[in-house]
Amino acid sequence: MIEIILDKINNPADLKDLSMKELVLLAGEVRGFLIESVAGTGGHLASNLGVVELTIALHYVFDTPEDKIVWDVGHQCYVHKLLTGRRGRFGSLRMLDGLSGFPKTRESEYDAFDTGHSSTALSAALGIAAARDIAGDKFNVIAVAGDGSMTGGMAYEALNHAGQRQDRNIICILNDNGMSISASVGALSGYLSGLRTKSSYLRVKKELRGFLEKIPRAGKHIDTFLLKSKVALKRMLVGGGIFHNLGFNYIGPLDGHDLHMLIRVLSRVRRMEGPILVHVHTVKGKGYKNAERAPYAYHGVGAFDVHTGQANSSGGNTYSDIFGQILCEMAEKNDKLTAITAAMPDGTGLWDFSKLYPNRSFDVGIAEGHAVTFAAGLAKQGLIPVFAVYSTFLQRGYDQILHDVCLQNLHVILAIDRAGIVGQDGETHQGLFDLSYLLHMPNMRVLCPKDGKELAGMLELAVNAPGPWAIRYPRGCPPGFNGITSETDIGKAELLLQGNGTVKPDIAVISLGAMAEHALNACKMLEREGIHPALYNARSAKPIDPEMLQALTGYKYIVTAEDNVRSGGFGENLLSRLVELTGGNPPAIRIIAFPDSFIPQGERGEIFSIYGMDGKGIFIKIKDFVKP
Amino acid sequence: MIEIILDKINNPADLKDLSMKELVLLAGEVRGFLIESVAGTGGHLASNLGVVELTIALHYVFDTPEDKIVWDVGHQCYVHKLLTGRRGRFGSLRMLDGLSGFPKTRESEYDAFDTGHSSTALSAALGIAAARDIAGDKFNVIAVAGDGSMTGGMAYEALNHAGQRQDRNIICILNDNGMSISASVGALSGYLSGLRTKSSYLRVKKELRGFLEKIPRAGKHIDTFLLKSKVALKRMLVGGGIFHNLGFNYIGPLDGHDLHMLIRVLSRVRRMEGPILVHVHTVKGKGYKNAERAPYAYHGVGAFDVHTGQANSSGGNTYSDIFGQILCEMAEKNDKLTAITAAMPDGTGLWDFSKLYPNRSFDVGIAEGHAVTFAAGLAKQGLIPVFAVYSTFLQRGYDQILHDVCLQNLHVILAIDRAGIVGQDGETHQGLFDLSYLLHMPNMRVLCPKDGKELAGMLELAVNAPGPWAIRYPRGCPPGFNGITSETDIGKAELLLQGNGTVKPDIAVISLGAMAEHALNACKMLEREGIHPALYNARSAKPIDPEMLQALTGYKYIVTAEDNVRSGGFGENLLSRLVELTGGNPPAIRIIAFPDSFIPQGERGEIFSIYGMDGKGIFIKIKDFVKP
Repeated sequence: MIEIILDKINNPADLKDLSMKELVLLAGEVRGFLIESVAGTGGHLASNLGVVELTIALHYVFDTPEDKIVWDVGHQCYVHKLLTGRRGRFGSLRMLDGLSGFPKTRESEYDAFDTGHSSTALSAALGIAAARDIAGDKFNVIAVAGDGSMTGGMAYEALNHAGQRQDRNIICILNDNGMSISASVGALSGYLSGLRTKSSYLRVKKELRGFLEKIPRAGKHIDTFLLKSKVALKRMLVGGGIFHNLGFNYIGPLDGHDLHMLIRVLSRVRRMEGPILVHVHTVKGKGYKNAERAPYAYHGVGAFDVHTGQANSSGGNTYSDIFGQILCEMAEKNDKLTAITAAMPDGTGLWDFSKLYPNRSFDVGIAEGHAVTFAAGLAKQGLIPVFAVYSTFLQRGYDQILHDVCLQNLHVILAIDRAGIVGQDGETHQGLFDLSYLLHMPNMRVLCPKDGKELAGMLELAVNAPGPWAIRYPRGCPPGFNGITSETDIGKAELLLQGNGTVKPDIAVISLGAMAEHALNACKMLEREGIHPALYNARSAKPIDPEMLQALTGYKYIVTAEDNVRSGGFGENLLSRLVELTGGNPPAIRIIAFPDSFIPQGERGEIFSIYGMDGKGIFIKIKDFVKP
Repeated sequence: MIEIILDKINNPADLKDLSMKELVLLAGEVRGFLIESVAGTGGHLASNLGVVELTIALHYVFDTPEDKIVWDVGHQCYVHKLLTGRRGRFGSLRMLDGLSGFPKTRESEYDAFDTGHSSTALSAALGIAAARDIAGDKFNVIAVAGDGSMTGGMAYEALNHAGQRQDRNIICILNDNGMSISASVGALSGYLSGLRTKSSYLRVKKELRGFLEKIPRAGKHIDTFLLKSKVALKRMLVGGGIFHNLGFNYIGPLDGHDLHMLIRVLSRVRRMEGPILVHVHTVKGKGYKNAERAPYAYHGVGAFDVHTGQANSSGGNTYSDIFGQILCEMAEKNDKLTAITAAMPDGTGLWDFSKLYPNRSFDVGIAEGHAVTFAAGLAKQGLIPVFAVYSTFLQRGYDQILHDVCLQNLHVILAIDRAGIVGQDGETHQGLFDLSYLLHMPNMRVLCPKDGKELAGMLELAVNAPGPWAIRYPRGCPPGFNGITSETDIGKAELLLQGNGTVKPDIAVISLGAMAEHALNACKMLEREGIHPALYNARSAKPIDPEMLQALTGYKYIVTAEDNVRSGGFGENLLSRLVELTGGNPPAIRIIAFPDSFIPQGERGEIFSIYGMDGKGIFIKIKDFVKP
């Protein structure tokens, strides 16, 4: 495909020379480029196809980088990246050292703020706007947030704060596609649909006139404007009770694929004062039939065939799949089991559960904090809620886990998916902190399966014993452990390799969860060099199996391996327990973990290798540690 | 004072035998009891005086404990406790082993859910309601939340979730007194005031009729009812756009001190279906002139004289005072300094700053998550925001600190007040986790002053060096260190006692922040027994001073002391660094910290003593550790 116009766009200023017709052609070229490019690399496709016109209009109307655009979540920033000089890097999208799939201030001056988690954009934008006002500057600040993001409480906290200062200019674009990753839920979603449908032409016309009359010098053009405006423009409503009540000037809903109209309205919005919310209606996946039909499937995709829409590679059963299957099986026998998702029934494996047990299934929106306390409420009445959530997003529920679940010692199960390295989403999505934020919580117990069978056993254990539980497991498919696993109590450590204590040095390796595979490989390499460590699969990160701890005091060297940052993680906790147990004099210990830093994007295997966390890396570290 | 009616109330069922006249008398007796009792013990007075009639009405109308009342935050539960058989325990309010100042399920079956932090009640109540519906039970679930609590995003997440199910009965009482601890802020606050004032009698009458017609069998009484209803009842509005838009049936605003009317309306609400929000207007401090005049001063009070309103004891300059003063002084010279509070300008010491520098001062409401990301936005533009917040409440901003501040390495300063033991507020308010949730965050640096002078120095340091900082300091007044402190670089450890390495055992004690005072006392006791430890004041918990770490490798025994839980805290971090530094073989170490559990209420001194964290306790632990 040849992109005649896109070829000429090196930065947003180049857009301003284009005619309206060329801008429309550009939108088509951008769409074609995105589909082909993401088909090759994988990435977030549907959300970006939905904001092609909106992004072009924003960059046409506003003057970035002086004006600041903050993209909520940020996976919808591809068009923005294309228009801000990064087209040539799309071949490296989401790869090691490649273009990030999210806004990164270090990547471009056009990226005003790093995002990745939901519902932060308006808070960040308001901070930028307040700083602007203190400095006496005049630029525009625009937050672009999806309707899904608006289900997060933080967005509301920011609306409430922004709305109290009518003299602080800030523009919030509500990109309403009726979807989070799955369909948006909650009362707000129904409310927004209502805004879209209940407008009558006459009411709109009246409201539109009121809106236009607020714009300086527009007065005499109003009638001409109303006469000429298109159907979509006529659908504008100055309604938006919620936003209006919170102090925002509400404009919309607008057809987010009518480029002419978006440009016209945004040009006016640009000159308005105070907090403004522009409600834009977009279609997720717009312009690519496969994505329009199944936008959730094209939210985040691997490489695929453009014509058939088929993924190039198909995986086996992931941890998420296994989790979902087991939960359904258990729910058949146990009517107290309930499941909660924060807007991700697909990703977490809860889709089948939600269809089989709709009355025991809850999608609370992108609202992890509420999800946890809601679970606590269910548990208070004797139900057994399982909140399935990605490690990185559960960070939003830290206080609620500690304060509402652990303090009352309630029977809530956190099924923590995407723990450890997630790969191509990079820093903002790595699940490298959950051990550090959970292990210090009183009453919490944390289990880590090494494979799918252990995940099943651990769920069974957690469902049948009261109190708070977390079960953390990684992205992707579990490995096999050809016959070396044992049938011991799933809450206790498992001895995978006996080692050979009679041949010095006398080493015990303790792996946690997903690290069993890599630790086992390392031990096999060591065996080839005549070193025979014992290998424990710890299974429970908290409490640490006391029998294993006691056994460890007899070794000369201890090595721990976990896919979490070092500080506050499993190794340090084990070390601390050993210090207590030995009166301050534990065996020599080496903690193998990810460093206390933000780990960048790349294939999971690449990242494990680079950080010396795969079999070979662990082998080298152990050899270095025990060398005489 | 004799409480003739209150004397007869052993549980809420006893209320139901009372006449309306007796109920009104009871309200007066409850108020008298509260004022006298809290004058003796200290506690949360103003908020409880505001809900006397509301609580009596709730217990008169609903049948607890079958019906569940969840009190948001929970400090307004005294009246509830008085009416549910705990009157005799009020003399022990907030004391060690005494009556809690917050709802505790372990204390009474009438306490449906433990609370302490803001904005959780509706989430918990919704969980309880969903569990009820799954079980096919029929009881009522009532969440009572203040207008301040409604500025927290979690409340909105719960409204959004609740509002989507019109078949799930839940009652939210919005106790609107226009205050958080200070005056409520944000657009919602303005909106609620608007609801209170803009009602016209005619509109109300029409809406009231509509409301009454929804109630089964009420039809024929409507006209009589309307005729007889009092002025306050006529002010009812079925408006409430925001709540209505989120799927709630809005009723109010009601005069929260008109007991007759509250009982009448709640009796009807009890029979209504779906999500209902009842907006009640109350006066914080109602009935005690001193508290009505200055409700923030009587939010949480120590013991005071009932007649004059004067506090029985007056403290000196607290850490919060010192922080506030220094920040004002620094802001005079540095116009980039900005300050943020989440609805607590008084408690955090920011009051003067907000008056002196209104344009650089931000009260964001009870919205810690937003506060952190808003600060990140300010910092992105080159300002230097200081977010002053209690340790326990900053838990609500965990994800935002990690994801929005640390990831971009932004110059945000967290001034963490009430770190460590807070005393009488107990489990829900202890600041015992902040080291554990901050020390593992990449780029974060954590400083802990041992006194007011160090707090000043650390603020100066943090303001002048980019990147994220946390400075944690305890409740109360700093101790003096008669001349033993040195003028070394405030970012480095300070050697308070040289020790005597030539006399074995060769011990180094490392105290963090507030523990310096207790560790010093312990060392003095040890000296009397001929043991001469070196004593370091660590100052920086992260990074730990590398020179001190290097020096520590030369000791035989290491003891650390911190007022945080053990797991993930300072001692474990220091141990881990020593393990790295020594190739796995650090000196013998003993970590002194609070256990990994929830620490109950009591005077700060009592708690330190009970947990062996005062001078004597540390002395005993060190002696035990180094004994031959």
